[in-house]
Amino acid sequence: MKQLAETARKIHEMEIRGAGKIARTAAAELRDYAFRLRTHDIIEFNEKMRIAAELLVSMRPTAVSLPNAVRAVKRYKGGTVEDARRSIKELADGFIAGSENAIKRIGDIGSKRVRDGDTIMTHCNSAAAISIMAAAYAQGKDIRVINTESRPRMQGHLTTRQLDVLGIKTSLIVDSAVRYFMKEVDIVIMGADAVTANGSVINKIGTSQVALSAKESRKNVIIAAETYKFSPRTILGDLVDIEERDRGEVISPEKLSEFSNVTVKNPAFDVTPREYIDLICTEVGGFPPEMAYVIIKDFLGWGIEEMNSNGA
Amino acid sequence: MKQLAETARKIHEMEIRGAGKIARTAAAELRDYAFRLRTHDIIEFNEKMRIAAELLVSMRPTAVSLPNAVRAVKRYKGGTVEDARRSIKELADGFIAGSENAIKRIGDIGSKRVRDGDTIMTHCNSAAAISIMAAAYAQGKDIRVINTESRPRMQGHLTTRQLDVLGIKTSLIVDSAVRYFMKEVDIVIMGADAVTANGSVINKIGTSQVALSAKESRKNVIIAAETYKFSPRTILGDLVDIEERDRGEVISPEKLSEFSNVTVKNPAFDVTPREYIDLICTEVGGFPPEMAYVIIKDFLGWGIEEMNSNGA
Amino acid sequence: MKQLAETARKIHEMEIRGAGKIARTAAAELRDYAFRLRTHDIIEFNEKMRIAAELLVSMRPTAVSLPNAVRAVKRYKGGTVEDARRSIKELADGFIAGSENAIKRIGDIGSKRVRDGDTIMTHCNSAAAISIMAAAYAQGKDIRVINTESRPRMQGHLTTRQLDVLGIKTSLIVDSAVRYFMKEVDIVIMGADAVTANGSVINKIGTSQVALSAKESRKNVIIAAETYKFSPRTILGDLVDIEERDRGEVISPEKLSEFSNVTVKNPAFDVTPREYIDLICTEVGGFPPEMAYVIIKDFLGWGIEEMNSNGA
Amino acid sequence: MKQLAETARKIHEMEIRGAGKIARTAAAELRDYAFRLRTHDIIEFNEKMRIAAELLVSMRPTAVSLPNAVRAVKRYKGGTVEDARRSIKELADGFIAGSENAIKRIGDIGSKRVRDGDTIMTHCNSAAAISIMAAAYAQGKDIRVINTESRPRMQGHLTTRQLDVLGIKTSLIVDSAVRYFMKEVDIVIMGADAVTANGSVINKIGTSQVALSAKESRKNVIIAAETYKFSPRTILGDLVDIEERDRGEVISPEKLSEFSNVTVKNPAFDVTPREYIDLICTEVGGFPPEMAYVIIKDFLGWGIEEMNSNGA
Amino acid sequence: MKQLAETARKIHEMEIRGAGKIARTAAAELRDYAFRLRTHDIIEFNEKMRIAAELLVSMRPTAVSLPNAVRAVKRYKGGTVEDARRSIKELADGFIAGSENAIKRIGDIGSKRVRDGDTIMTHCNSAAAISIMAAAYAQGKDIRVINTESRPRMQGHLTTRQLDVLGIKTSLIVDSAVRYFMKEVDIVIMGADAVTANGSVINKIGTSQVALSAKESRKNVIIAAETYKFSPRTILGDLVDIEERDRGEVISPEKLSEFSNVTVKNPAFDVTPREYIDLICTEVGGFPPEMAYVIIKDFLGWGIEEMNSNGA
Amino acid sequence: MKQLAETARKIHEMEIRGAGKIARTAAAELRDYAFRLRTHDIIEFNEKMRIAAELLVSMRPTAVSLPNAVRAVKRYKGGTVEDARRSIKELADGFIAGSENAIKRIGDIGSKRVRDGDTIMTHCNSAAAISIMAAAYAQGKDIRVINTESRPRMQGHLTTRQLDVLGIKTSLIVDSAVRYFMKEVDIVIMGADAVTANGSVINKIGTSQVALSAKESRKNVIIAAETYKFSPRTILGDLVDIEERDRGEVISPEKLSEFSNVTVKNPAFDVTPREYIDLICTEVGGFPPEMAYVIIKDFLGWGIEEMNSNGA
Repeated sequence: MKQLAETARKIHEMEIRGAGKIARTAAAELRDYAFRLRTHDIIEFNEKMRIAAELLVSMRPTAVSLPNAVRAVKRYKGGTVEDARRSIKELADGFIAGSENAIKRIGDIGSKRVRDGDTIMTHCNSAAAISIMAAAYAQGKDIRVINTESRPRMQGHLTTRQLDVLGIKTSLIVDSAVRYFMKEVDIVIMGADAVTANGSVINKIGTSQVALSAKESRKNVIIAAETYKFSPRTILGDLVDIEERDRGEVISPEKLSEFSNVTVKNPAFDVTPREYIDLICTEVGGFPPEMAYVIIKDFLGWGIEEMNSNGA
Repeated sequence: MKQLAETARKIHEMEIRGAGKIARTAAAELRDYAFRLRTHDIIEFNEKMRIAAELLVSMRPTAVSLPNAVRAVKRYKGGTVEDARRSIKELADGFIAGSENAIKRIGDIGSKRVRDGDTIMTHCNSAAAISIMAAAYAQGKDIRVINTESRPRMQGHLTTRQLDVLGIKTSLIVDSAVRYFMKEVDIVIMGADAVTANGSVINKIGTSQVALSAKESRKNVIIAAETYKFSPRTILGDLVDIEERDRGEVISPEKLSEFSNVTVKNPAFDVTPREYIDLICTEVGGFPPEMAYVIIKDFLGWGIEEMNSNGA
Repeated sequence: MKQLAETARKIHEMEIRGAGKIARTAAAELRDYAFRLRTHDIIEFNEKMRIAAELLVSMRPTAVSLPNAVRAVKRYKGGTVEDARRSIKELADGFIAGSENAIKRIGDIGSKRVRDGDTIMTHCNSAAAISIMAAAYAQGKDIRVINTESRPRMQGHLTTRQLDVLGIKTSLIVDSAVRYFMKEVDIVIMGADAVTANGSVINKIGTSQVALSAKESRKNVIIAAETYKFSPRTILGDLVDIEERDRGEVISPEKLSEFSNVTVKNPAFDVTPREYIDLICTEVGGFPPEMAYVIIKDFLGWGIEEMNSNGA
Repeated sequence: MKQLAETARKIHEMEIRGAGKIARTAAAELRDYAFRLRTHDIIEFNEKMRIAAELLVSMRPTAVSLPNAVRAVKRYKGGTVEDARRSIKELADGFIAGSENAIKRIGDIGSKRVRDGDTIMTHCNSAAAISIMAAAYAQGKDIRVINTESRPRMQGHLTTRQLDVLGIKTSLIVDSAVRYFMKEVDIVIMGADAVTANGSVINKIGTSQVALSAKESRKNVIIAAETYKFSPRTILGDLVDIEERDRGEVISPEKLSEFSNVTVKNPAFDVTPREYIDLICTEVGGFPPEMAYVIIKDFLGWGIEEMNSNGA
Repeated sequence: MKQLAETARKIHEMEIRGAGKIARTAAAELRDYAFRLRTHDIIEFNEKMRIAAELLVSMRPTAVSLPNAVRAVKRYKGGTVEDARRSIKELADGFIAGSENAIKRIGDIGSKRVRDGDTIMTHCNSAAAISIMAAAYAQGKDIRVINTESRPRMQGHLTTRQLDVLGIKTSLIVDSAVRYFMKEVDIVIMGADAVTANGSVINKIGTSQVALSAKESRKNVIIAAETYKFSPRTILGDLVDIEERDRGEVISPEKLSEFSNVTVKNPAFDVTPREYIDLICTEVGGFPPEMAYVIIKDFLGWGIEEMNSNGA
Repeated sequence: MKQLAETARKIHEMEIRGAGKIARTAAAELRDYAFRLRTHDIIEFNEKMRIAAELLVSMRPTAVSLPNAVRAVKRYKGGTVEDARRSIKELADGFIAGSENAIKRIGDIGSKRVRDGDTIMTHCNSAAAISIMAAAYAQGKDIRVINTESRPRMQGHLTTRQLDVLGIKTSLIVDSAVRYFMKEVDIVIMGADAVTANGSVINKIGTSQVALSAKESRKNVIIAAETYKFSPRTILGDLVDIEERDRGEVISPEKLSEFSNVTVKNPAFDVTPREYIDLICTEVGGFPPEMAYVIIKDFLGWGIEEMNSNGA
């Protein structure tokens, strides 16, 4: 129980962070916890597993990947503790491997949509989106990327660096120049923090603006997102929280203190509606955003009843 | 001639800059030059004035306000040098006073469109746009401004400061957050560097993106622009040059030098099409952007023939 | 058989009306009929049940909820009459309870989409839509509703009364004022009479106009609809009939008789296309309208074959 | 002076109302006043005329046609009182005749846009719009009109009656049914209360909704408006007031008094943006709405200076 | 094996062509091959069937219906060769019958969307689309068809002939006249060569242009497509190849040879995005295009794993 | 008179055709007729000139350039026949030279909008549009043209030939492929047969479809049109006739006679609304289409009164 509590704490205090990492840690912890349990009584075992699962989920109630990982393991079957453990191990290991492999799979699938000679626009820094560009480039396609700097935290510089290492030609622009350069763009590829049941994509602030500008110019937008980014909670109406981050990211406290009537607003994410998205590219295939519920059901294994009872 | 040459040089080398300042300087120089000329022969006088006018215009061939100012003075009439000088003085002084007064007039006219309780979005730093906000606030209207930081040069901080001094409540946001906050906005007010014959507005990079987002949400966009921002040249098909500025504004040269495949693109302006603009508010009234040619003709006094022959 | 016939008659002659009431009555009648049947021969039993089901469905061939209710009960299983009766009772009671609970569930789920301070627009009088407003208000959210009077039958007055009793602030407007007030609106919530396989919503005349106006202003439209409002027939191409109601609702017969060249057109419903709808909120969750077929399949239990053979 | 004051009072207290009637009354009063003045001193005469003009305009500062009528007469010329009177008479009589003839001219011009077999949609009750339909019908074109009842004051019934008398086939619908019937419509023809400098049309509540629905279906919207409906004031930024009318028009005071949390909003007009209007048909021709300033200048005779000094 | 090879060759060399024909031929060949196999060892049998299936699919790797047909047969079950053969026969015969019946079923379902008096626009020559028109006409509906000639191969003439034989009134137009006549159209019905996982429709060049024009005028577009036109491959990101056809179809080689700087571009198909399509009408029902994946899964029987392993 | 009658006949019977040619012929004829007149009585002279002018205009009442040419000459002034003749000669020669020079001027002005490396799409065969391409190419810009074949008369082949001779690279496509290739296009340049007062462009069938597709992809559309293509008549509501051409252009009479229920519709032109046009490039400058009335007034010299009285 101590180790379970410790893992829970790390998730809660965000020592462990990032949608993929949280998910894999939770799945591994549940698996290991199942083997640490001393009981041979399957009923007691199941009850303890249920409590452990709830504990983990409650650590970051708004994280999208956490309940998906826990749900994946909880689907275990078995009449004896031994059988249950075997089933849990299989499910947890499968989930972890799938998660680790997801970025690569997304690259394989998404890169088929990139043609030789394409100019790609991206925003912020998404491993899944970069995986598509890397795969396309590795296939010998002559691509060029326009990427935004992504104020306030300048994650665009990370993207620049990662693409540069791969040898892909990049043009760095300010966020305000997106519409100016859209005419040169063939396809827009961005990541996601979460996908909701109605097909909206929650991603870094500015994403919806890039997508709007792409739509205006009839350029397709591909969102690269692992399936565990899809949020079952949103089927039951829950909104994905848009984090308001520290205003010091936008302007230094000293400078801000010179003003009397000025506040800073610093939302970390925005919401892109489904009509601006051509395709969500996941590790199990590409789907239109309207398919979000089917993905949650078919690939994440949630039924409506479980969502209701399990705090999806 | 020496002083004329010196003024021309200053305009050329951008010691004198800013649409209003260039315009007023050129008008004053032509006026003073007329009084410095020694001749009493009206034909010689006219010829010298013509040459001086051409010299000045040629110093910044793509500046919009320069030919408008020169054109305003060149409309002088007079059969004798004395009469011509009197006419020139009247025209030049009128132009200068009109120009100086324009910002205030725009504030008076545009502020009628701002209602009590309005949230205004603005971008970059426009004296004319701020004049509208200041006038509305001075009328006792309870307004709030959302203003972008306006990367790369952060002119939004100037706007923040100017509004703060006036006592107007401001929220500073990153450029990527425009669409996120558009729902809270009642009206968008921005400036212009130039207005073309087909009603397009050339303004700080990002303007067209703000306007697009406003259109998507059915929020009106007002462009505050002095009449001398309207470009007669564009009637003859000329494009307004979009200046590409130093890449060091976007990323430090040291950082950039670490990369092998990265370039920086830093256009200073973009083009907002007329269908995203509700009104251009000038010192002589508010007009839809489609009226650009009529404004050029009626208020700047250009005829088609003169445009052709005078390098409008 | 007499009681079955009597229930059938009441449905046919619209003594029993309203999507929910029809559905629950039909489910209850089938259940009771199963217990009234004297036979112990399961084959005869099944045949009689089939005939009863067909009879009920044929009473209102275009009603949307009726075949859904009948279908819910017909999924019974059992090798003996006893088993079949038990199964029928379970299914019918489950359907009835689900239906009765649906309005409340929709309120719970949909109210999560309403934020504190929101202004909601609604049209006509929908129990499901009002349930969302009531739940949001009960959660302590400070909401305000703008509701149309909904000519010709002025059902908006009912909505006004119901919201007034709950203590919710309401502004009553004429139907023509929808676009005028859309700028003040944060979210639009309306009901549905039927949802078709391609995600269109059939609802009170004027609904599509409100939705169009909301789209123009980038305001989200939520449709509150119980799952039995989804029409399986439409998968097979059937159109939902748009009832033409009595012209006396629009103008008194006396007044109309004064005219020679005047007719009155009084369609009761219109069709809102899916691209104007953000979310359909049902008792089992919120879905984009494109998901209509999946809902029909997963929650109403229709397969393609059954639709074909059972007159879905 | 007594008669002038009396006319002013009648305008102020809305005994005289309607854009055309106010305009013609003011023009006639100024003419008659000029002949009643006893002075032979042209300077005194001019000063008295100026004061009379200002008095009349100040009676309904937001009426659109009043300053246009006064402006038409004030353009008189003359070095002597006799000459001035003659000029005034000519201008006033010309204005009055032009105004009286405008409706017929609009019918002649606009009817050319109606083709044989067309279905026309109209809203509310506009003499100018009906004139177009009447002219088209008189030319033998087989037309049919769909007209809204136009809640709350049901002016659609007036339209129905007027078209019925002319023998034109009409279908009366509720305001909510506009989008439903738009598919059957070939052209939309409506009137205007005012046209602003940026080409917006102020007209009966619901007009903008009809226009939006027409745009959605690629149906052209023609606005029938006499030139004196164009508002010079709006060039200087003035907004056209949207009158809030008695709530008793929407719901009876008794019924309203039963509620605790209910208010009624009853704006009389709304604003249709220029992009939803194909043509404004005036008595001097058809123009796109963007031409509003040119019409104000060319046909109403306003210069910018006069607008500033004369309280346009 | 010889006959299998011969069938494969015919598919490869396009002696057998057309989506339906290819599909039925492949299903029949697999069935017959199963009966020709001499082995009684089920493992050997299965392996040979697997190889045969792969061979057939590899003959036209980009054909959409081929893997769907092969997949339909490969779902056979059986522990003995006899059982397997029986299962294969049932599946193959079912697929063939379903395919042959599909056109008629599409006509039955789709014709419910056609109303008496409708004008239908179609493009190119689609058996499924014509089936809808024929069914509607056979139901006694008074319909009229506007059909394009469909350059370069003038398949519109085939459509004209087929409709003429049926007795349906047709107006033949050039492809450029589509938007001109769209105002007269009530509904657009066209076929499909393939439907992708994100709901795009691949069809004869010009289809997307017709659909765009229909959207502009708020006319619904129905795509008539058998389920085997849905492409499982596209879920994994594959693009449907757009065939570039012989330039001689556009201009004669002699004429082309007169030019020095002229090339001919002759793509056979284009891509219509899902937002321009109201409904895809298949033999199992009508669905919005966003449902493509569900159709592939539910009616074509593909799971994600099989797509990956079977070269879907 | 005989020669006048002969010229009139040639215009009437379309021996002389093409907007420019008709216009120049009419101007020349009026000029020559003035010199052939024997009278010295200026009143008689004026009357005869008036009759001649009316005769010519009546020969092609719907031709757009004809009344513009006649109007240009009719503006002559002079108290004596000699003065009048001199004035007529000056006006007629000026008009003819301006007309002949217009194509070149349009090339000069419009080519400034073409950038090095641009891909231009054009439709049909317009001398003015080709002049822009030729000028851009002559300036050393590396351009490429995609041009449609323009069924039914294949004028695209003329365009192909003319561009080929100039050395400009061209890709010939069928009309249905416009949207397919729009992604590669930077700018669309087409001609006009007429421009109406509300800014609509009448041009070869298909033009509006190309413009719609360009708008969808945010590509600018430039219309190249001499000022005499602007139609004064349309200010007074007149519609521009859309000629229905011989059906034999679409399908051979023999082939057509095989059918019983088939008609052919062959409109020569369509109407492109102003919102799809960025700029109309004339010989006196580039204007937004909304400016049509101002061009008619300022450059063609029509006043409203003259339009009314002179059968504009």
